[in-house]
Amino acid sequence: MSIDRQKRCRFRQLGLTPGELSPGPLNAITDVSGITVGQVTLNSGNGDHAVRTGVTVIRPHQDSMFSKKLPAAVHTINGFGKACGFEQVRELGQLESPICLTNTASVGLAADALITWTIARNPQATSINPLVGECNDGYLNDIRGQHVKKQHVYQALERATTGPVAEGATGAGTGMVCYGFKGGIGTASRRLEQEQGGYTVGALVLANFGKRSLLSMAGLPVGKHLVPLEKELPDPEKDPDQGSIVMVLATDAPLSSRQLLRLAKRAGLGLARTGTAGGHGSGDFAVAFSTQNPIPHKNQEAAIVITTLPEQGRVLDPLFLAACESVEEAILNALCTAQTTEGRKGRVVHALPLSLVQALAQAQPKVGEI
Amino acid sequence: MSIDRQKRCRFRQLGLTPGELSPGPLNAITDVSGITVGQVTLNSGNGDHAVRTGVTVIRPHQDSMFSKKLPAAVHTINGFGKACGFEQVRELGQLESPICLTNTASVGLAADALITWTIARNPQATSINPLVGECNDGYLNDIRGQHVKKQHVYQALERATTGPVAEGATGAGTGMVCYGFKGGIGTASRRLEQEQGGYTVGALVLANFGKRSLLSMAGLPVGKHLVPLEKELPDPEKDPDQGSIVMVLATDAPLSSRQLLRLAKRAGLGLARTGTAGGHGSGDFAVAFSTQNPIPHKNQEAAIVITTLPEQGRVLDPLFLAACESVEEAILNALCTAQTTEGRKGRVVHALPLSLVQALAQAQPKVGEI
Amino acid sequence: MSIDRQKRCRFRQLGLTPGELSPGPLNAITDVSGITVGQVTLNSGNGDHAVRTGVTVIRPHQDSMFSKKLPAAVHTINGFGKACGFEQVRELGQLESPICLTNTASVGLAADALITWTIARNPQATSINPLVGECNDGYLNDIRGQHVKKQHVYQALERATTGPVAEGATGAGTGMVCYGFKGGIGTASRRLEQEQGGYTVGALVLANFGKRSLLSMAGLPVGKHLVPLEKELPDPEKDPDQGSIVMVLATDAPLSSRQLLRLAKRAGLGLARTGTAGGHGSGDFAVAFSTQNPIPHKNQEAAIVITTLPEQGRVLDPLFLAACESVEEAILNALCTAQTTEGRKGRVVHALPLSLVQALAQAQPKVGEI
Amino acid sequence: MSIDRQKRCRFRQLGLTPGELSPGPLNAITDVSGITVGQVTLNSGNGDHAVRTGVTVIRPHQDSMFSKKLPAAVHTINGFGKACGFEQVRELGQLESPICLTNTASVGLAADALITWTIARNPQATSINPLVGECNDGYLNDIRGQHVKKQHVYQALERATTGPVAEGATGAGTGMVCYGFKGGIGTASRRLEQEQGGYTVGALVLANFGKRSLLSMAGLPVGKHLVPLEKELPDPEKDPDQGSIVMVLATDAPLSSRQLLRLAKRAGLGLARTGTAGGHGSGDFAVAFSTQNPIPHKNQEAAIVITTLPEQGRVLDPLFLAACESVEEAILNALCTAQTTEGRKGRVVHALPLSLVQALAQAQPKVGEI
Repeated sequence: MSIDRQKRCRFRQLGLTPGELSPGPLNAITDVSGITVGQVTLNSGNGDHAVRTGVTVIRPHQDSMFSKKLPAAVHTINGFGKACGFEQVRELGQLESPICLTNTASVGLAADALITWTIARNPQATSINPLVGECNDGYLNDIRGQHVKKQHVYQALERATTGPVAEGATGAGTGMVCYGFKGGIGTASRRLEQEQGGYTVGALVLANFGKRSLLSMAGLPVGKHLVPLEKELPDPEKDPDQGSIVMVLATDAPLSSRQLLRLAKRAGLGLARTGTAGGHGSGDFAVAFSTQNPIPHKNQEAAIVITTLPEQGRVLDPLFLAACESVEEAILNALCTAQTTEGRKGRVVHALPLSLVQALAQAQPKVGEI
Repeated sequence: MSIDRQKRCRFRQLGLTPGELSPGPLNAITDVSGITVGQVTLNSGNGDHAVRTGVTVIRPHQDSMFSKKLPAAVHTINGFGKACGFEQVRELGQLESPICLTNTASVGLAADALITWTIARNPQATSINPLVGECNDGYLNDIRGQHVKKQHVYQALERATTGPVAEGATGAGTGMVCYGFKGGIGTASRRLEQEQGGYTVGALVLANFGKRSLLSMAGLPVGKHLVPLEKELPDPEKDPDQGSIVMVLATDAPLSSRQLLRLAKRAGLGLARTGTAGGHGSGDFAVAFSTQNPIPHKNQEAAIVITTLPEQGRVLDPLFLAACESVEEAILNALCTAQTTEGRKGRVVHALPLSLVQALAQAQPKVGEI
Repeated sequence: MSIDRQKRCRFRQLGLTPGELSPGPLNAITDVSGITVGQVTLNSGNGDHAVRTGVTVIRPHQDSMFSKKLPAAVHTINGFGKACGFEQVRELGQLESPICLTNTASVGLAADALITWTIARNPQATSINPLVGECNDGYLNDIRGQHVKKQHVYQALERATTGPVAEGATGAGTGMVCYGFKGGIGTASRRLEQEQGGYTVGALVLANFGKRSLLSMAGLPVGKHLVPLEKELPDPEKDPDQGSIVMVLATDAPLSSRQLLRLAKRAGLGLARTGTAGGHGSGDFAVAFSTQNPIPHKNQEAAIVITTLPEQGRVLDPLFLAACESVEEAILNALCTAQTTEGRKGRVVHALPLSLVQALAQAQPKVGEI
Repeated sequence: MSIDRQKRCRFRQLGLTPGELSPGPLNAITDVSGITVGQVTLNSGNGDHAVRTGVTVIRPHQDSMFSKKLPAAVHTINGFGKACGFEQVRELGQLESPICLTNTASVGLAADALITWTIARNPQATSINPLVGECNDGYLNDIRGQHVKKQHVYQALERATTGPVAEGATGAGTGMVCYGFKGGIGTASRRLEQEQGGYTVGALVLANFGKRSLLSMAGLPVGKHLVPLEKELPDPEKDPDQGSIVMVLATDAPLSSRQLLRLAKRAGLGLARTGTAGGHGSGDFAVAFSTQNPIPHKNQEAAIVITTLPEQGRVLDPLFLAACESVEEAILNALCTAQTTEGRKGRVVHALPLSLVQALAQAQPKVGEI
């Protein structure tokens, strides 16, 4: 059996427990109450015009985001990317649309779809800030064909559900490549102890970045050990401009937009744990929102009362660690769940060989043994 | 004759000379060599579905922007807006698409059009950063109808020419409102003396902002004097969320992207000269680029040699003043040239009464008289 | 009588009323309840080592700022300056020291003094973020002599009082030059109507910037009319690196740190109203704080409840206008109150000729006359 | 023999080779030609007033930094810190002083010392931007005593030499704590192959951050294995406000200030490799400069010619990896070299037990074995 033909599973199903904190019941962004995820996978054809792409949407709640906005922040780690909607989130600290992830050449269309969809559902909406993130799936996907259509975005929005989230080569992740292996969608979560507030932090990533030799999985130097497997599992010669990751963080902790920015910055630390040195061509972005303290589109009140977390004290640190760990594990999940995929021009991107990860883990000394 | 029925003209045609520096021959952004502007005006129908909108594009040169990028910078003054493409310009200091201006609800579509158009012209393009700015023309235009189509963007790109630029209620400016009067597209330029480098700075604005009483024109307190005319020239009760201005600055000075950011920030000073206090709902953005030191999409060189301007010394100050004055006068030109426009729901937005401006100017004491 | 020998007064005492909003009772930053200002003026000697400098401190309240921090924001308009303490205010949105203004070469010493002073008054303080702003008074002052001592900072802190604020060539403003005339300290305020919340916004500026010909005072093109007076009132040939302005905004409106950043950005619009084009060498900075929602140094609470202003609606616009007008008038007050000053090497910087401003104002047509 | 009594050494002397790239001959920031480092260690007394602090300076070249400035950038990862001089570096992209590292309560004094020192050596200097970074050594050091004096800064500047750099509990690192062990000064470098440009990147860090259980050393999960040693090597109960790291990156690659900012951001990735989740109270800052393309203080040229690196192509990625690895190894070196230190109130901070690191490394499977 070829090394990469084994059944795919999530990282924890390999018997490994990354990080210090405990995940929520689904170990997914949907552990944050009210969040739904919807995906449309476009997988058809072969040769030059193979379609390996899709759409993944995150709906922070099922009401209209336009009439019930949420505190939010965006953070650009490496800005070689085309994310839409960042300026207004920075200024107002508010998210007013679902978050849509797709391929680079579809970012305008996805923004247009979010606008049309919001107009249809909000009779008074004339000024809508759509939030779209993208990665470049042009190695496997005929990205120049712009195969995503507005209808696909609507479908993803309508399909969005609570519960487990499909990972790997699905939705916007269909054609993505990560550390030289098949990447795509991954998710994870952390739930704090009651004495730390009992809050949940969830992450969902679109992972399409990384140089193979650098891959580190929960501290295991997987990348180094992959070098001898290069013949069996050839590394796609990716154009370095085709990297990128979008990281979405959600929480039910009542954070202000400034605090959410601090949370979003920790996404970069989680990202770094997987080994990347931040390639020039990798557009790396984080978005964070809280489901608490929703903001109505119109507000005639003279003042509002908000419950939030104090900056002083030790309240934020567990949330920061949760963000860091959720992002790290979401990336690991994308790699572990994604299946070997053949795409454009007959190119094959292999699944990460899980057996290697397991073997490496088993060789580790146990705590207390040394 | 009603006060606002007089023929429209540019600000200088009123006999006034704003600022200290001299304009280029066209007093337009097209004074910067190589720049072309193209516009498509959509003006049809009445009632609820009146279409009063359009597209204005600025092409920094006639080659492919993707294969011959330019040093650029973006600056957000008030981020309540939906501009696209800012993240990558910030990171790389490069502009790789024409600049497209349109209405708020068409920002995604315009980005999509720029991508499709670039793909069609660049066989290897898979990752394109479209730069789009927008203002909200929903007072006069059925913005929710999303009447701009990709074809309109292509037309504007193809029509782009050197020479004088149509101003006022044209292109993306068709439905815009500025200081309670008809606004829209305006342009102006400054040409430095040879001993200051002989450089040209040009500005083009999409002006859709401002509270009438604050209007100041080259120092003349026009806003105050408009108060008694309120009955004759009623101020549209604009939703304060419908403001905004996009300011595009171009120069043939060989500025680095960091220096262009400094230039872009001076756009805000030019804007302030017209009186605005920076409304919460006004998304105010500046983009600046240089036509010098083009950057190839692919570069195999180990090092590049660039001629740029020293920061030290007094080289930048005249350019900063030129940026400031160009933006100020471009706004004045938008106001002076735009004609009274009837739009959605029979709403009328009046042209600025030029006779008042002239009368106010004539009442000013001459230098040396006091 | 020489044109600049007339008695100095504040701008409104010339009979002029800049802006649309009404000032507070003192038309000073001290109209915001609890704020005190203290100044030490160092004015001694002549020749090469003439001392024309000083310290101005703003104490947001009389308790320990370290144990009762305030929501705050900083905004850099042109970063050619040495302000201290900005990084932490950006991250935490908190001000934890008085604000100290002084000359450029004393910025380190002033920071050191604030630290020592805070340590002495807060037994557990080990990590203090001093906020210091500076301008370069080296044209009139022997700045290289570093004549400000820690004792001067302590004195300013101890002298800080409510009530009217001394303006012009006083405290940190002793040696400053503005638009080619004697500048320095200026202050102003605006009080909103009850239906707009009844809040007060106050500004205090250290004004040391500007090119004479550009000076605009409440719309009056004073700069142009000064040209013929050049012989009588020679413009100091200032090194353009010696510009700068620090603008401090205070309010009793319960703004979040993000909202305070928006307020701080409007300081730049108020600045621009006076005519400047933003010189390369002018370090222009704004600091804004709210006296509401103080933040204890230690907080063991799991959550905190805050009353703040809604972003939606029209609540912020009057505050933005108030910030803009307060800064503008504070600069005008610095210019109108500062007296002709002789300093280093016998250099003379003239007071702005108020009679010219009055004559220009009287020549203006009244509203309704044209 | 107690586990932490073993001889200290650098990380590579344990037989480990972190990263993929090769270090320069000294594996220190001084591998970048022209750079010198000077340190003053203050280690005296015991009890409440134990002095465990100092100063570390980096001089990019031996000429006057004021008259021969260098391209530079600063990056704030977590802004809970008091770094001075950042605003001007951001605006102008220039460094004009040596870089000084010290304790938090001495940041003003160190800035003042750099100003005085620069004035003394530059007859025309009136406006100097001192760059100072700090961490809080208040656990071991009587930080409230402000024991660093200007003379110490001058001494460090004068002692600065090429060659190996003293690491660990020395200079500014004398009292610092990192991952619950003794930290302080660390340095490392990377030299690229000739076909990658042959450039050198060096890092010097002041390491005073981190939660013990998270410590990761070149991928080894040291933190986890330290848990059973808690009794033997108690973790100081650090006030979480006492964290922080300052990371200085130097290179002889001719990078622009914008490119240096990109390099500085990779310092954060190197930092993350050591395991931290970015504590709320840890002020984490990076400064990067290039020794190429020096900038004279006065420049009368109309234009300047600069040789720089193209953004396109694969030129930057090796530099980014070098930055990442240099910072990571510099932190490891700080931990490995620092000796157990007793300080204020009899508190002891232990040296990291190197034997554990070695044992863990030896237990790792070799590449190709699994």
